[in-house]
Amino acid sequence: MDVWEKLKEKAAMIEPLMRNYADFGNDSIKQMVLHPIVAGGKRVRPCMVLLACEAVGGNIEKILPAAVSVELLHTFTLVHDDIMDHDLKRRGKPTVHAIWGEELGIVVGDTLYSSAFKALTDIRKSGIDSDTILDALEVLVWANSKIQEGQIMDMLFEKRNDVKEDEYMDMIQKKTGVLIEASLEIGAILGNGSEDEINGLGRFGRYIGMAFQIQDDILGLVGDEKAVGKPIGSDITEGKKSLIVIHSLNNLKGIEKEKLLKLLGNKDIGDKELKIAKDMLIKSGSVEFAKTAVKKLCEDAKKELNVIRDSDAKNTLLELADFMIERKF
Amino acid sequence: MDVWEKLKEKAAMIEPLMRNYADFGNDSIKQMVLHPIVAGGKRVRPCMVLLACEAVGGNIEKILPAAVSVELLHTFTLVHDDIMDHDLKRRGKPTVHAIWGEELGIVVGDTLYSSAFKALTDIRKSGIDSDTILDALEVLVWANSKIQEGQIMDMLFEKRNDVKEDEYMDMIQKKTGVLIEASLEIGAILGNGSEDEINGLGRFGRYIGMAFQIQDDILGLVGDEKAVGKPIGSDITEGKKSLIVIHSLNNLKGIEKEKLLKLLGNKDIGDKELKIAKDMLIKSGSVEFAKTAVKKLCEDAKKELNVIRDSDAKNTLLELADFMIERKF
Repeated sequence: MDVWEKLKEKAAMIEPLMRNYADFGNDSIKQMVLHPIVAGGKRVRPCMVLLACEAVGGNIEKILPAAVSVELLHTFTLVHDDIMDHDLKRRGKPTVHAIWGEELGIVVGDTLYSSAFKALTDIRKSGIDSDTILDALEVLVWANSKIQEGQIMDMLFEKRNDVKEDEYMDMIQKKTGVLIEASLEIGAILGNGSEDEINGLGRFGRYIGMAFQIQDDILGLVGDEKAVGKPIGSDITEGKKSLIVIHSLNNLKGIEKEKLLKLLGNKDIGDKELKIAKDMLIKSGSVEFAKTAVKKLCEDAKKELNVIRDSDAKNTLLELADFMIERKF
Repeated sequence: MDVWEKLKEKAAMIEPLMRNYADFGNDSIKQMVLHPIVAGGKRVRPCMVLLACEAVGGNIEKILPAAVSVELLHTFTLVHDDIMDHDLKRRGKPTVHAIWGEELGIVVGDTLYSSAFKALTDIRKSGIDSDTILDALEVLVWANSKIQEGQIMDMLFEKRNDVKEDEYMDMIQKKTGVLIEASLEIGAILGNGSEDEINGLGRFGRYIGMAFQIQDDILGLVGDEKAVGKPIGSDITEGKKSLIVIHSLNNLKGIEKEKLLKLLGNKDIGDKELKIAKDMLIKSGSVEFAKTAVKKLCEDAKKELNVIRDSDAKNTLLELADFMIERKF
């Protein structure tokens, strides 16, 4: 069984529970809230919660709502991100606001946000002590606030052409790294892990999360549209400052740089011009640069697991780090 | 000292703390998050937290972050509501999205949402036990989810001309009543009130909150623009189904009803037509009907306080119920 199948098996444990959290009295509301929940997704974050819990010797049956919680939080950020990025499709399906409009899209996102906290407080029923639950809740709140900080940074970067590589890394750490970090920490906290274990697993998650984001940027540029589930090159037309774009802008000079700048963030360019921009990003060595960054982050992540005792869960996490580098979807 | 001055005195206790929760590393973010926090507002909800705590004999110094929490949550809903309603002004000042755009407006709202939970978990530092804090947190989460349900109902009502009075009451209970109910419950829980006290204060809040919303609708139609701080009649042009509008539509017949329907939700009507709509709503007895509903709710609210021992805090709450009926802003 490859790592992806192992994750799918874990993810299956939480699917029915996920749907419960869309169960509002009003059918119209239920339909809207359920849409992004059942629209698929890799369920990487809930798997991280469960694997971290197992890795510290905890009982995952008790903490399933916590796994649901981080996925609901993630889903909320996607619903709002899609509105902010004006993306009409996600995972090959229409986004919430594409169906029901931006106004309802905003409040559907807000509802998922509430449900994320509801799920985490529901852990009380498992008999886990309140102090431990509050520790986990504080991590979720912290992650949440960092994600929004990262999102704002990302948006402010769009207007700038002088973003540095380390600013980008700081932004994706917040926007993507932090929630995977939080997922592992929450799993380790609720599984009664030691401080070293909680921190080690957390940092593993942070690095994996950042690698995940950079790999997303790579796939969004040179991936297969069908596998990725969103239009290839949309980052170029949206003017997103991905690591690839930043590296190119910092390395191209004169007329070449100007040419790239004209293409970036230009929603009216056709397939031909999109291909020119894509080729420039590849030829400037920026795609290669991003791939190297992914590899380095995954190596750093694996080292963090030295504090964790050997187990199936630990092995799965190590395999996942390797998989990050190779994933095509 | 009238009740409003008493509330102002209480509200002043939390102002500096409110600002702390906008304190992000990045100055641009801080500026955006701080804007709706300092834009004013009556701070009714934090005062309710503190008064409920006092009314059950609790120590309010310990629970100030909980008072901040409900106001941050309220502020978050306002930021998103203003985007959804396309309102460019709130309390006479430009709204967040009017200054920074809708995309950043969405994420600024999300940030305030996080900060609300951060504030409530910060109560841990006060030494209040974790079980009690989780009880309060569950109330906040519950309120949150109901608010969004109410918001969605409100938006769905805009498209309907057959909304019933009881559907409207259910909607405002969720959209407005629930957070004031939650504020009082949270104060009573953290002040170690009995179950009867918590429930009685909660219901007081629910009724007061609903009265507050109906009074808002009344003031938005026949109030003084300067005192209210938003354009009079915007509910008519936005096609909002307020209790006044619902009552009119359910009581007007034939050509009169059609005339009103043509004016509602029509953003292009001028001052003259706005006045015609306003006069129709007054002449149909619907404004009077709404005023009677406010009075009834406030009387019901006061009865709920029978379970509470006599105190200055209880007196202030009773005065507030009376004030609700007379308020002009």
